[in-house]
Amino acid sequence: MAPEGVHTVKSYEQELSRLRAMMTRMGGIVESQVAQAIAAVTAQDEDAARAAPGQDPQVDALERDVEGLAIRLLALRSPMASDLREIVAALKITGDLERIGDYASSIARRSTRFDLADSRISLSGLTAMGRLVQENLRRAIDAISQQDPERALEVWQSDQGVDEYYTAMFRALVTYMMEDPRNIGPCTHLLFIAKNLERIGDHATNIAERVYYAVTGENLPAYRPRGGLASDAAETSVTR
Amino acid sequence: MAPEGVHTVKSYEQELSRLRAMMTRMGGIVESQVAQAIAAVTAQDEDAARAAPGQDPQVDALERDVEGLAIRLLALRSPMASDLREIVAALKITGDLERIGDYASSIARRSTRFDLADSRISLSGLTAMGRLVQENLRRAIDAISQQDPERALEVWQSDQGVDEYYTAMFRALVTYMMEDPRNIGPCTHLLFIAKNLERIGDHATNIAERVYYAVTGENLPAYRPRGGLASDAAETSVTR
Repeated sequence: MAPEGVHTVKSYEQELSRLRAMMTRMGGIVESQVAQAIAAVTAQDEDAARAAPGQDPQVDALERDVEGLAIRLLALRSPMASDLREIVAALKITGDLERIGDYASSIARRSTRFDLADSRISLSGLTAMGRLVQENLRRAIDAISQQDPERALEVWQSDQGVDEYYTAMFRALVTYMMEDPRNIGPCTHLLFIAKNLERIGDHATNIAERVYYAVTGENLPAYRPRGGLASDAAETSVTR
Repeated sequence: MAPEGVHTVKSYEQELSRLRAMMTRMGGIVESQVAQAIAAVTAQDEDAARAAPGQDPQVDALERDVEGLAIRLLALRSPMASDLREIVAALKITGDLERIGDYASSIARRSTRFDLADSRISLSGLTAMGRLVQENLRRAIDAISQQDPERALEVWQSDQGVDEYYTAMFRALVTYMMEDPRNIGPCTHLLFIAKNLERIGDHATNIAERVYYAVTGENLPAYRPRGGLASDAAETSVTR
């Protein structure tokens, strides 16, 4: 039988990896919600539109479980340095994951509220934007499960691409609305969908920043302006 | 001279109230950002439009300070029960406050990008919605500083009013766009502004839920559907 000190250390490690596994699982569900949301819009897939919000309760339950375990670890283990940073990061990251799931459900619900059958509105921009957002989210979740700062850095670097897609989408949608008032209804929904995708990208970046800090103890190289400053400005030229 | 135990307890209490004071200060700044954002839109006040984003760095710095103090308290004091809940809630609430500040800045920046001078677009709905959101935010921040679950409950109860205002705004804005294509630019911005205000209301409710739990150890009476389910559905009748 192992001496008590060793046993304590081992089960502490086990609890930390359980925390990481719960986060990864939460990330996996949220990732599938985002995939369903994008399919609901771009392929008008009604099953996917129902499936994404259907997973919300699981995400909420996992958020509470992670919080419970994190609090227990904080209370009973008095973690220090990088362990403490990881547990605090977990508390923050679950908030980001929950928001991502929320945005995905919101996109999925919206997808059933308009019909593009008789319009010439193209969704190719949204498809490309969706692909990049999903790629970034995948990397952010890998960064959590592998505690890998390099992956985190990749997410952080490619968020600008998401903003550029958003700006292009915004311009295209306003143009469709100007061309034909029948486009106003669907394009209004598509504007919100594009914005929600951009926000999902922002939250993936937040996660990347938090993982990077938890693992390295350093903040990412430079302060990254959040909240779509660049894309806000680019909207102006179309709407003024 | 006080015995050492008493001294430790006292400075622990002092640190906890310092944490609360920092949160209240962060809340106060964010509150002023929201007031500036609303003035920027409804009174076309350009100074206010600049002032709101100007306070972002202060909010970010306070978020980091709260996080730093919370981590120190967790590491050195091994807090239990309600103290532990309060410190964990602080970590989550700063995230909500930061998002509220972010939405306010986004509204303020948008306010300079359109001009309602020659249109018949009315902002009376937005003004009323802004007033209710500000009231709720004020209550949420009072709930933090006074650790008052009653105030938290008030916020939680009146969020539905915010959603109703949002739905009415959404209908009105889509109607303006249908009437005259020259309204499409400004109304697109106003749609996002209304949505951001609704989100600020959601985050005030999140804060209320967290304060209630931290103080009482109980969740609020019933699960409140988040992400504007009700308002999403109400949008449909106009845009389909």
